[in-house]
Amino acid sequence: MPLEKVETLRWKDGCLEMIDQRVLPARFEYLAYADAASVAAGIRAMVVRGAPAIGVAAAYGVALEALKLRAASAAERRSAMTKAFDVLAASRPTAVNLFWALKRMRALWDRLGGASGDEFANALLAEAHEVLAEDIRINRSMGAHGAALLADGARVLTHCNAGALATAGHGTALGVIRSAVETGKKISVIADETRPFLQGARLTAWEMVQEKIPVTLITDNMAGFMMSRGEVDAVIVGTDRVAANGDVANKIGTYMVAVLARRHGIPFYVACPLSTIDLGIPDGNAIPIEERDASEVTGFRDCQWAAAGVAVRNPAFDVTPAELVTALITEQGVVKQPNRQNVAALFK
Amino acid sequence: MPLEKVETLRWKDGCLEMIDQRVLPARFEYLAYADAASVAAGIRAMVVRGAPAIGVAAAYGVALEALKLRAASAAERRSAMTKAFDVLAASRPTAVNLFWALKRMRALWDRLGGASGDEFANALLAEAHEVLAEDIRINRSMGAHGAALLADGARVLTHCNAGALATAGHGTALGVIRSAVETGKKISVIADETRPFLQGARLTAWEMVQEKIPVTLITDNMAGFMMSRGEVDAVIVGTDRVAANGDVANKIGTYMVAVLARRHGIPFYVACPLSTIDLGIPDGNAIPIEERDASEVTGFRDCQWAAAGVAVRNPAFDVTPAELVTALITEQGVVKQPNRQNVAALFK
Repeated sequence: MPLEKVETLRWKDGCLEMIDQRVLPARFEYLAYADAASVAAGIRAMVVRGAPAIGVAAAYGVALEALKLRAASAAERRSAMTKAFDVLAASRPTAVNLFWALKRMRALWDRLGGASGDEFANALLAEAHEVLAEDIRINRSMGAHGAALLADGARVLTHCNAGALATAGHGTALGVIRSAVETGKKISVIADETRPFLQGARLTAWEMVQEKIPVTLITDNMAGFMMSRGEVDAVIVGTDRVAANGDVANKIGTYMVAVLARRHGIPFYVACPLSTIDLGIPDGNAIPIEERDASEVTGFRDCQWAAAGVAVRNPAFDVTPAELVTALITEQGVVKQPNRQNVAALFK
Repeated sequence: MPLEKVETLRWKDGCLEMIDQRVLPARFEYLAYADAASVAAGIRAMVVRGAPAIGVAAAYGVALEALKLRAASAAERRSAMTKAFDVLAASRPTAVNLFWALKRMRALWDRLGGASGDEFANALLAEAHEVLAEDIRINRSMGAHGAALLADGARVLTHCNAGALATAGHGTALGVIRSAVETGKKISVIADETRPFLQGARLTAWEMVQEKIPVTLITDNMAGFMMSRGEVDAVIVGTDRVAANGDVANKIGTYMVAVLARRHGIPFYVACPLSTIDLGIPDGNAIPIEERDASEVTGFRDCQWAAAGVAVRNPAFDVTPAELVTALITEQGVVKQPNRQNVAALFK
């Protein structure tokens, strides 16, 4: 199955369909969603993950709810839509794209004023379609800017999955790699497996194998070894939220990779659509970090291996301070050595 | 089952019995070994692991072979014993205790000269028993020296398992923690799960739960998060080989923990019996690093999750430069800021 045909999220028969990323790569299947609450549950359960993809899913969650309420009274609709926005906002705390997409849908909702149920539904669905299409355009633009940073022959380490599966298509970090490959550069990828959810082993490896981009899987704790042996030329990761000062929240373990990259003089790039930058958060300390269920750490799915009785911590994200970030790659261009000033300038 | 009763290796009914560490903590069972080749296979398959335990197992492997050859001619015995030393030496490359124990057994063998088959066997078995007993004494001594380094209430991060299961008993890194607890200090442990073999999740967590020492399990990529939140007061790890300049080879991922500890001003201790120091190796670059099978990285046991077709690296160890080591804890005392001079002084 060629990957350009893979749609992480798609609109089909009046439903949002999402690839069930929990069962990849063993099984490739779509699950269908018909209202906001079920989309929120899918986000929480990580059927869909990756900050941009979560944003797109949330936009469709709002549209689905409006479609369900076409025949409802204005008062019913207002009450149910408020609940829909709330349940979607509560699905996961760290990725800001979720809140960005909900804010965008909410602004449209507010603008529609006294529109009919059909008008509401049609407008919100059109907006969700646009959020999806825009995401792919933005990823293509980031890819073009970022590809210039990678030398021909570069061995690029990435953490988690910031690929097509984390977005509506093309990907953020993997989008940069794809764009570099499209320009004719030979790029090879080193994928951290990314415990506990194994997005690297399952999703990044799968995407790269599909496209025949050479990919080598390592456990997360091997990144330092690879760097110390001179086998890593650059690091590119995605992000779930960037604070106003350039601090980067991303999948747990990103911080360790950034510290190691600095020690070894390896550039550390963050592929970051503007929708991921949260100017309302002064620095990384203020970014809420989700802690997930212990069973993710004591094993993987039904395969549980840890000693009974052990306590567990499971923060899903960590914060990399801006000083460790060589550059943010955005759809507006590359921001070297991010700080409060050059991040703010992106929005002027 | 109280842990003081747990013998990682024991002599029973004329055989070496070893806890099968591959199936812990789900099952607790011993496997019996009657000759050198099967002990070597057990080491290679990681039935037993941990540098000091591997050394003890190898000593018994030699003794078992001598017992088998009691009735053989001197020529047969010489030939078979040479093979036995070779097969044991080829079992795993990184932990130097294996070679240290074989050298010790070989020296005794050479001294025995024209002894009878029974005399050979009895002397080598007695020596293996002494290697085991000595390991426990050394761990107790390291524990006493190291315990003084841990403050009451310390939250101590450890990587892999350098516990009773990695030794004949008490442990090296966990031995220091046990000794500190015995002096009345409240110590809590943060255990890296230690992919790919999960010695932290399966073995360290199990040992600590058995002894009711508070233990929290994290994935390897969470250590930086815990340090950045101020939740780690010290790091203690074991080692498989220390070079003459103080560079430390240990389980893959140790280097990353050391780099992070330095960044956060957290002391990084290495519990290191003298048998683990290899003065014949000038620095860490010369330490051979074992690369193991890809299937350990693409999953765990029968639970395989990685995308088909992905390439894999699986170095089992990495090297932490001496400059990142706050102190080596040995049975002779604590060596702060290890270097060529103070490491050499341990052997004067």
